[in-house]
Amino acid sequence: MPIEKGDFVLLDYTLRIKEENKVIDTTIREIAEKHEIKKERFEPRLVILGEGNIPKGLEDELIGMEEGSKKMIEVSPEKGFGKRDPKLVKVYSARLLANKGIIPRVGMEVEIEGKRGLVLSVGGGRVIVDLNHPLAGKTLIYEVKIVKVIKGINEKVKALLKRRLGDISDKTKVFIENEGKVLRLDFPFEVLNLSNLGQFLSLFLKDINKYLPNISVVRFVFEHVLKKSTEEGKEIKTEKGAIAKAEAQHQPTGGDNP
Amino acid sequence: MPIEKGDFVLLDYTLRIKEENKVIDTTIREIAEKHEIKKERFEPRLVILGEGNIPKGLEDELIGMEEGSKKMIEVSPEKGFGKRDPKLVKVYSARLLANKGIIPRVGMEVEIEGKRGLVLSVGGGRVIVDLNHPLAGKTLIYEVKIVKVIKGINEKVKALLKRRLGDISDKTKVFIENEGKVLRLDFPFEVLNLSNLGQFLSLFLKDINKYLPNISVVRFVFEHVLKKSTEEGKEIKTEKGAIAKAEAQHQPTGGDNP
Repeated sequence: MPIEKGDFVLLDYTLRIKEENKVIDTTIREIAEKHEIKKERFEPRLVILGEGNIPKGLEDELIGMEEGSKKMIEVSPEKGFGKRDPKLVKVYSARLLANKGIIPRVGMEVEIEGKRGLVLSVGGGRVIVDLNHPLAGKTLIYEVKIVKVIKGINEKVKALLKRRLGDISDKTKVFIENEGKVLRLDFPFEVLNLSNLGQFLSLFLKDINKYLPNISVVRFVFEHVLKKSTEEGKEIKTEKGAIAKAEAQHQPTGGDNP
Repeated sequence: MPIEKGDFVLLDYTLRIKEENKVIDTTIREIAEKHEIKKERFEPRLVILGEGNIPKGLEDELIGMEEGSKKMIEVSPEKGFGKRDPKLVKVYSARLLANKGIIPRVGMEVEIEGKRGLVLSVGGGRVIVDLNHPLAGKTLIYEVKIVKVIKGINEKVKALLKRRLGDISDKTKVFIENEGKVLRLDFPFEVLNLSNLGQFLSLFLKDINKYLPNISVVRFVFEHVLKKSTEEGKEIKTEKGAIAKAEAQHQPTGGDNP
């Protein structure tokens, strides 16, 4: 079945800049190693067609492809990261940058006016910075493969969770209850120790709201089984000893007493 | 019914140092204001008899009291915060403290060797610090009232939760399921934004394990109801717009593409 707007797709891709014939990104480890591209993880990437998270020229060409199929897609700057804007090549005084704690060198990435820029030249107290997107003005060539079209609601939930929480999603159980209206996610208790968990889950909730609109309630469950067997009694006792101090420190009433 | 070991008690108290006839701590706002004692909250404090979180001399005297009763309790240093140890009054070189970023003045609290101490004198390059507990060697007088003896398991859970999470416990629903074996706590979703939530709940779990040993499973539930009504459709749309950027930033694969 051809892919259409709204579909969830796992995509393998390798991206190269046409003008320089240079590979700059890929989901495939072997290709990355060959081109010295460093990344935390190599796995197909979730693309939701129509989401607008990838360049329009790429998205347009994915529509109509089928699971397992491959394609080479050329994306013009207009449908990629835009044309280069000469006005975004700006001149700054070296002193101004120094005041911001930046000692510029050619080729360095700097952040100015909320944008990332590339230092093109330094000299005579002047610094020239290119604030264009690094891929602006480039023609892009994507070699893509539709690894999978995700169909089931449970799998869609898992995929959305994965892009917010990474591998934790593998340890999470997904349940759809109440005729599809309630989504329950069972996490290992340790996930509660993740910093910014609330923030990530809020983004996940917005995804659910947008892409799985039948779901009206999401329930996040963190379960902990307390160890009760006699064998482990000793271990627990030690833990309790350690806790006595922690308790004293965490008393909301503070202070040393009564 | 007289209080016994293991009971959960809500205690009002006012603590004064006998030698100086000085009130230094209280659970009662009016008394605190009179004596210029600052505290975040004024409410009876949870005491679990036998827990060892309060001085032994106080704990011993609470046993046998009844709900609603009052008492004045004198606690000797031996059964309070210990005798003063003259060896814990130590001399440090001012230079050594300066190296740690401490510029000592008399009466200042400093942290040395993992202990809190009071600067007694400064002069001639020498600093004398008292590392004894501030209440060591003092006879303490507690005026106490047993505000409540907590009996029900739900109420005990709430009280334990309150001392870890403060007022959030008021917005939490407690359910005891499966013949008392499963404890379920329903929190508002926003609680997930609390920093160190996992740490606080771990301490709570140790309390449950210790004081409510019949419970073998604890389930923390955070529920979010997604807004679906047409009236709110507009609002949600705006939120989604804002999210497009956040999404790009939070892509686990990072980078600018494909």
